Amino acid sequence: MSYGKVDAALAEKLEEIVGKDRFQYGSGVGEDYSHDEMPIYGKHCPEAVCLVESTEEVSGIMSLCYEHEVPVTVRGAGTGLVGGCVPLCGGVVISTARMNKILGYDMKNLTVEIQPGVLLKDLAADALDRGLMYPPDPGEKTATVGGNVSTNAGGMRAVKYGVTRDYVLAMTVVLPDGQIMKLGKAVCKTSSGYSLLHLMIGSEGTLGIITQLTLKLIPKPIADMSFILPFEDIAAAISSVPSIKLANLDPQSIEFMERDIVDSSAAFTNNPVFPTVVNGREAGAYILVTLVGDSEEELEGKMERLGQVAEDCGAYDTLVVWDEAMKRAVWAARSAFLTAIEAETRLVDEMDVVVPVDRIAEFLLYSHDAAEEEGIRLRSFGHAGDGNLHIYCCSNQLEEDEFKKRVKKLMDKCYAKCAEFGGQVSGEHSIGHAKKAYLRESVGERAYGLMAAIKQVFDPKGLLNPGKVCHDIEMQ
Amino acid sequence: MSYGKVDAALAEKLEEIVGKDRFQYGSGVGEDYSHDEMPIYGKHCPEAVCLVESTEEVSGIMSLCYEHEVPVTVRGAGTGLVGGCVPLCGGVVISTARMNKILGYDMKNLTVEIQPGVLLKDLAADALDRGLMYPPDPGEKTATVGGNVSTNAGGMRAVKYGVTRDYVLAMTVVLPDGQIMKLGKAVCKTSSGYSLLHLMIGSEGTLGIITQLTLKLIPKPIADMSFILPFEDIAAAISSVPSIKLANLDPQSIEFMERDIVDSSAAFTNNPVFPTVVNGREAGAYILVTLVGDSEEELEGKMERLGQVAEDCGAYDTLVVWDEAMKRAVWAARSAFLTAIEAETRLVDEMDVVVPVDRIAEFLLYSHDAAEEEGIRLRSFGHAGDGNLHIYCCSNQLEEDEFKKRVKKLMDKCYAKCAEFGGQVSGEHSIGHAKKAYLRESVGERAYGLMAAIKQVFDPKGLLNPGKVCHDIEMQ
Repeated sequence: MSYGKVDAALAEKLEEIVGKDRFQYGSGVGEDYSHDEMPIYGKHCPEAVCLVESTEEVSGIMSLCYEHEVPVTVRGAGTGLVGGCVPLCGGVVISTARMNKILGYDMKNLTVEIQPGVLLKDLAADALDRGLMYPPDPGEKTATVGGNVSTNAGGMRAVKYGVTRDYVLAMTVVLPDGQIMKLGKAVCKTSSGYSLLHLMIGSEGTLGIITQLTLKLIPKPIADMSFILPFEDIAAAISSVPSIKLANLDPQSIEFMERDIVDSSAAFTNNPVFPTVVNGREAGAYILVTLVGDSEEELEGKMERLGQVAEDCGAYDTLVVWDEAMKRAVWAARSAFLTAIEAETRLVDEMDVVVPVDRIAEFLLYSHDAAEEEGIRLRSFGHAGDGNLHIYCCSNQLEEDEFKKRVKKLMDKCYAKCAEFGGQVSGEHSIGHAKKAYLRESVGERAYGLMAAIKQVFDPKGLLNPGKVCHDIEMQ
Repeated sequence: MSYGKVDAALAEKLEEIVGKDRFQYGSGVGEDYSHDEMPIYGKHCPEAVCLVESTEEVSGIMSLCYEHEVPVTVRGAGTGLVGGCVPLCGGVVISTARMNKILGYDMKNLTVEIQPGVLLKDLAADALDRGLMYPPDPGEKTATVGGNVSTNAGGMRAVKYGVTRDYVLAMTVVLPDGQIMKLGKAVCKTSSGYSLLHLMIGSEGTLGIITQLTLKLIPKPIADMSFILPFEDIAAAISSVPSIKLANLDPQSIEFMERDIVDSSAAFTNNPVFPTVVNGREAGAYILVTLVGDSEEELEGKMERLGQVAEDCGAYDTLVVWDEAMKRAVWAARSAFLTAIEAETRLVDEMDVVVPVDRIAEFLLYSHDAAEEEGIRLRSFGHAGDGNLHIYCCSNQLEEDEFKKRVKKLMDKCYAKCAEFGGQVSGEHSIGHAKKAYLRESVGERAYGLMAAIKQVFDPKGLLNPGKVCHDIEMQ
């Protein structure tokens, strides 16, 4: 595929749209725009960057790029892990970082209208101030909500509330030719034609550019309580999950973590919040459960039931995270896992597979064995309630080429095992360009072909985020 | 568009696939197959009917029809209200009525595998027997679950649990050329390419034929309690809904009903379960709320809060539906609304719009005024928590032509008002062929064109359920 270039004349027109301060061109383009948080998948510099502030600006830029056949890649906070916002074919990067306004709440319909560049943590905090909650809670709080929608991020509370998809009621998108289109409405139910809204969610900026979002909120829960359940090993820990789910406790989150990652995190934060020896026994893995309810009393009743279930499943104890400071410390430790991993290793690669809940332990054990064979160190944690695992491959002192070679062999094995277990390639990090081959293998040629044909319907010139998801390019 | 016909040679081949007992042809085709529950939109007889029992049979039939360019319309229980299963162009009707097996539960992952012809009431009862609940609860319990998925039906519990879409994890579909494809996996989270699964949900049998479903279940709630809140009029009743939602009661359902429909239902069932005079005042409208929880005590606590909110919002009282018999009677009355309406009128037409919750009353008042102008009698009820209204237009003694003319004028006005209020054409009944023009107007030419292009991707010969949703045919 041969794309147009951002020449001086086009650059001038683009600069006219956003203004000098919000435009970068050629050697003036910041290095940051060439990668996300997984630079191991390759860096690619855009020819120009536009820091947009409105739907109209995005529309103007797209119209120009459509005319000149220049590729456009949209970027939120750049916190992705699969190269999703990396402009493989150069062209223009549209950054939504400045489209970070919360436009307004509708307290009668419990919705909020935002720009896509609002950070997850800012929306979460602002909603809480109004007595409301935005349920999706991915670990990376500095991601943009637009990015979360583009990857259908799930996060830690998905087991109770569902994923980002379930909270997007409507959006404004700019199509590749610059046309502005509204999808969905601020209503909670619809059966009105094919859901273009659901097609756009999780499409990683390859079908249209999201410039505004209407999201569903819920009332903030009145009380919550977290519990640490230490187990002998990961198999024991995971085997408790179906029982916890069946006990009618409707937990807000059920996270799992292996002992290794807890140790890494404790060393990194210098704050060992997870006890390593419980009642005289070494803990090999943990389940972290959060319950929510109407009152402390209600939660104390549920706590008793949880304690009983945990005991029956072989937990060493059910440790209540009583005070607010401790609760913050525990969840801060959970949120710091990735950073702690990165601090220990020079290079890192990752898998974000999702498998049926009862196959988590088996999958982890398989991965550890396979990693040992390849001489790769693993760290893992994830969302036990959803079967969504985050498995990080660490290079230790391996050279990049050798590491990549070994990781490739490891991942080939693991993704094949994931398919065998009835799993999916990605639970929430998406496909980008890093996982394309595994997606293709997983869904099969017919489904992959249907996706590619849908891409063609929306984006006949292949301009939006080329080379991602199901779009093939000859690398230039 | 010119389609092939089911000639004697093709009929013979079709009969070979399903066997003599499950095949109808020509004059042997039952009249039922020519319409759904809204015959006013026109009856169209198929040339042949196949009562399939397996995915392989559907695949075999589709391959033949693809080769001979014969249209195929899939039909569940025929309980639709927009002509969705009516074979406008003749051809073959595939009935899933015999694909009614619940194939198995996975108690570790809380999923169930079913054939598409399982009736909603059968799945609901069977899951309850296992201590589980299938949350979607559309009013029509004799609909098939496959039909519910094809229309993304919502029902009475959507305000707490979401709609059918939220419970479909995976499906097997047969594509127009007969290829069998699996979409999704039995996992609760995914970000693995465009969601063909979500595209198929709500597509009314126009993109593929669903032959198997993997559904998500939840543990059955331990306790539930229902409450009738009588109000002076519909405006007062609806104005209570945001307060009920904000009170952190997480109600399982918030239904509204106007006095008229309650009277019709009482006359029809001969069982007046809704009190018409409360504390000496005539009730003009009702809100019916169901709360669920861990115990009767928890619900009694919530009941107090609900009572306070209701009082603040002008409810005459908060009437607790205490015993099981009464609860059944109340919900039976609610479920009998449509039948009660049909018993009173010769002809009926309906709207299933969804508007923001705070516009429900205003929309109803507008509709009543418009109906009065056209001399049409309305009956309405619906899902107040979701903004989903079911408005029935009754002919009384009008002749069919006159009724249709007046209804058309009324609907044109109402759908325009719905769009003005930021609503959608259908909350859960879908588009079929009855609401196509309103869909097109509501979503706009670009979105309608994208839908039509997606149809073309899946079904290039236009064989699946022609003339529905976004597919245009010259009526033959």
